[in-house]
This record gives sequence, C-alpha cells and structure tokens, in this order.
Amino acid sequence: MSSESAFIEQLRVLATHPAARGLADDAATLTHGGRTMVITHDVIVEHVHFLPTDPPESIGWKLVAANLSDLAAKGARPNGALMAYSLSGDEDWDTRFVSGLGEALVQYKCPLIGGDTVRVPEGSARHFGMTAIGEAEIVPGRDGASPGDDLWISGTLGNAGLGLEIAKGELEGPDELLQAYQRPVPQLELGQRLAPLVAAMMDVSDGLLIDVKRMAETSEVSITIESIDVPLSDAFVSVRGDTRDASLEAATTGDDYQLLFAAPPRSRRQIETVADDLNAQIQCVGLVEAGKGLTLQEGGRPLPLPETLGWEH
Amino acid sequence: MSSESAFIEQLRVLATHPAARGLADDAATLTHGGRTMVITHDVIVEHVHFLPTDPPESIGWKLVAANLSDLAAKGARPNGALMAYSLSGDEDWDTRFVSGLGEALVQYKCPLIGGDTVRVPEGSARHFGMTAIGEAEIVPGRDGASPGDDLWISGTLGNAGLGLEIAKGELEGPDELLQAYQRPVPQLELGQRLAPLVAAMMDVSDGLLIDVKRMAETSEVSITIESIDVPLSDAFVSVRGDTRDASLEAATTGDDYQLLFAAPPRSRRQIETVADDLNAQIQCVGLVEAGKGLTLQEGGRPLPLPETLGWEH
Repeated sequence: MSSESAFIEQLRVLATHPAARGLADDAATLTHGGRTMVITHDVIVEHVHFLPTDPPESIGWKLVAANLSDLAAKGARPNGALMAYSLSGDEDWDTRFVSGLGEALVQYKCPLIGGDTVRVPEGSARHFGMTAIGEAEIVPGRDGASPGDDLWISGTLGNAGLGLEIAKGELEGPDELLQAYQRPVPQLELGQRLAPLVAAMMDVSDGLLIDVKRMAETSEVSITIESIDVPLSDAFVSVRGDTRDASLEAATTGDDYQLLFAAPPRSRRQIETVADDLNAQIQCVGLVEAGKGLTLQEGGRPLPLPETLGWEH
Repeated sequence: MSSESAFIEQLRVLATHPAARGLADDAATLTHGGRTMVITHDVIVEHVHFLPTDPPESIGWKLVAANLSDLAAKGARPNGALMAYSLSGDEDWDTRFVSGLGEALVQYKCPLIGGDTVRVPEGSARHFGMTAIGEAEIVPGRDGASPGDDLWISGTLGNAGLGLEIAKGELEGPDELLQAYQRPVPQLELGQRLAPLVAAMMDVSDGLLIDVKRMAETSEVSITIESIDVPLSDAFVSVRGDTRDASLEAATTGDDYQLLFAAPPRSRRQIETVADDLNAQIQCVGLVEAGKGLTLQEGGRPLPLPETLGWEH
C-alpha cells in the first residue's frame, strides 16, 4: 500500500457519513432541501501537476477543468467554485493565472464565490486548490458496475500525455497534443446526459488502466479491457503509430479528463443517441464480469498488465 | 493596497454572483431548495499560520477550528468538510495530524466527506486546506452594521497572541495561553443563537482592530472602539497587566476566533440572555455611527490608531 493509500485509510475512520461515499469517489454528495449537491476539491501543485514553465493562463484553466471534470463524472451542473490561491510574489504571473481561470469559469458558467489567498514562504512550490459545487438529480457512483455491463470511454486517450512531453521539450508534435495537456475540457454536458443511463461513472485523470482498476475494486467486479479498442486521436497516431505499445501508452498516461462509464447493454442505443446529439466520441472498450480486478486482452487473447497502470500521486 | 488586495480586486470581476457576497465575507452562501448553504475555504501554511515545531495534533485541530469559526460567524450548523492534505513524507507526523483533526471533527459533529491528498516537492512548506459546508436560516453578513448599533465581541482577546510567543519560546505564562493558540474554539452555538439577533457578524481571526475596520468598510459606517472595554483574560493580565499598551496588543493580535457583531440596542436583552444561557462571555466594545472608518478612544478621548491593526497575510 502506498503511504497515500495508508493515509486515506486513516481518514476513512472520520468519513463514515454517507455523503463521503467512503472517500472512494470523485466527489462528495450532500442532500439539501430535497436536492443533491455534488462537492469536490482538487489541488494542483507545481512540479507535481504542472511544470514551472507552463503558461500561467493554462494552469488557471486547468485548475477549473480538473474540478469540473469531477462534477461531470457525477452528472452535475456547476453552481460555483471557491479557490485557494498561493500568491506567487510575481504580480504579472498572478494576473495571467486569473485570466485563464476566468476564461474557464466563464466558459462553463461557474461563478467564483469565495476562497482564500495566502502568501507562501519563498522556495515553496506553487499550490492551488479549488472546491467546485454542483447539483444533480441522479449521481452515478464508481461502485455501480455489474456483471454484464459494457465499459465505455469518451473521446480519445493519450493526447495529454504526449502534450506533457512536448511541454517538457522532449517531443515535437501537432499543437492539438499540447492543447490537450494545457487546456483539458471537462465533459459536463455529456456527463449530465449520461448520468441517468449508466450504472457507474468516473473521470479518467490518472490513466485508463489505473482508473478502471479503481472502478473494478469499488464495484467489486472484474473488468476486461480490449487494448485494440483504446481510442486514439489522429494526432496521437501521427506521433506514436497505433501499435500495441502505443495503445498501452495511451491507456496509462494521465490528464485526459475523459468519462469512463459502465452501462447495461440495454442502454446502448440511448447512449449512442446522446453521443450523436452532442457530437461526442464514445467507444466501448471493455466488459464487466463477476470476479475481481483488471484484465487486459488484445483481440480476445490475454495480455500481461504493464508495470505502471497510470499515475499514482 | 497590498498585493493580496490587488489580487482579490482581480478576482472580484469573476465573483459577480450574489453567492460570492462580493468576496468580502467569511463565507459564500448558496440557496438550494429553499435552504441556505454556507461554504467556506481556509488554508493554513507552515511558517505563515503555524510553526514547524507546533504539535501536529494541534495543527489538525486548528484547520478544523479556523474553518468552523467562519461557519459560526454566519450562524451555520456544520454539515461536512473536505480536506486538502499535503503528505509530509513523515507518516508519524501525518498520523498525529489526523488524530487532532479527528478530535475536532468529532467534537463539532462535522463529518469528513472528501478532499484531495498530494505529495508536495521536498522543501515546500506544509500546506493544508479545508472546505466546510454548513446550513443556516439567517446568515448575517459583514455589511449589515448601521448607525446606532452596538458593537460586541465574545470571549477575551489576546490569549492566542501570547500563546504564539510561548510556542516560540519567547515567553512563559499560564498554559491557558498556549492552549488558546493551539486549540482555538469555534463559537458555533453562540453564532447560531446570535444570528437572528444581529445586524452584522464576523469572526475575529486577524485582530480586533483590523477586523472592525473591515466591518466598517463593508458596512459603509464609522465604528468607534473603546480601548478600556477590550476584554482581557486573567491569564493575559497576569503576563501583560491591563495597561493601555496591553489592551492595544490584545486588540491587534490574531488567532482568537471570537465573534464580532453589531446589533441594535433593542436586541441587548436578548443577546445577554443568549450569552447567559450558553455561559459565554460577551462585551460591548464600541459604537457604530454614520461616517467612515475606524476610530479608537480611551475613556471617551480619542487615541491614535496603532501602526499595525492586526495580521495582514
């Protein structure tokens, strides 16, 4: 067990309220006046979640997008956000951060309603937090997948991982890849429309394989992923090709903020209609079965799991 | 204008929703299904809000207390909290932090419902955030004080300031002072009972004078403080005496987490009854008038304002 997992085990003792969802979901839910509020808090830290050289505008954007992606995964509409901001001591940097933050808040109609500002000691990494609050009628958990369900993913995977390499100066490639890393798009509308149709849903922020493993554990099922079905963008393929290794790379890098969901076969038509309506790409990548854990296959034949399933932090 | 104030001015453009209360209050409020949710987020950072040598249990306690004090100031009952935790790399330290955190959450019946855990780069200051969510019927703002109102403060002031000196090894004094710094008590019940009786309320976390100045600015009134009425504890007086300088020190140091409120004279009896019921100390320390800004007096004669009104961070 990583020390983070051990720490979360200690917190679980304090999180017995049903709102906490066992600290095993993207967000907490509180029922308030007969409506369900969805509340999430995500932190991003320099050197861990972003590079010191990333444009501050994109870091502000990403703080919003990462949090709204958690609301999207719970089918929630954003109501507002609170920000915890560490003043950098560089006013121009702060202004540029706020500009990207504002772009994202306006784009997703999420007003800033509060927060806290602090000056951190010199030499400390930049550190930002956001609490996003939304509301929803039906909130799919990570724990609802059942044997027989299809496993789906929205969009394509791996772009942000290559974008990070480009940002580090280690790779050249289409601008779309850098964009995917710097300006991820929370799938809010898709999440809201899918929520009533799915059995389980979460966002993929750390890598498909690690996040599928988490869904399998929380739902107490076995999930098999077909590597050939991992959706890749043309931009990704133009850099890495579409070999097995390329698919596995796309399935184990983070920051894609796509929606991962399990749904019974009877929902297929409705799910495809929603995707068509929104002009969104979706792909069935696997199958939920009785049992335990994550299995990978290629054209139906078992593949060994890669050593690293995604990003553990 | 400090660079923090300048930064908050930039954020205000993004905070036009009424829930944001102009980013000039202790907490945001969202109306949801006919009920009012009160939401606050406070951050505490090593070297800024606590000392590296403070016992980790007390830092965990304080993170909860500081946030619940904001709910208290809005008359709210806690519903739950989300925590942003920076793993320290020292598991024993983390466990001790969680123990103090848990004590406070249990004491104030506030379940932990979510959050985020992150490993920060080596050399960064420890950095913790908490979002506390509560509900209330009547939410007093900072902006409701009117000419003719009395200005009140709960408890005594200055204990935590001396406690910080004791924690730094710069002073010796009764244990009560160190306790005030390490284990502040959010005035939840008092705040809930006072909320319907007051015109304006906030918590005093940065020092009486600076926080009164903020209330005067937000309410667009003048407030006069009578230095002789600043309530001091026996422990404080045993160390510093009850001179003018002692009173001014007590009125300009932070971390007391008392409630500051303005109320019309017709509420006096009810306010005193609430305090008697809860065995809480309250003291009328000033008067709200038409005009602008903060005035200090001693026995009715004007006193110059000290250079530092409290803790600006």
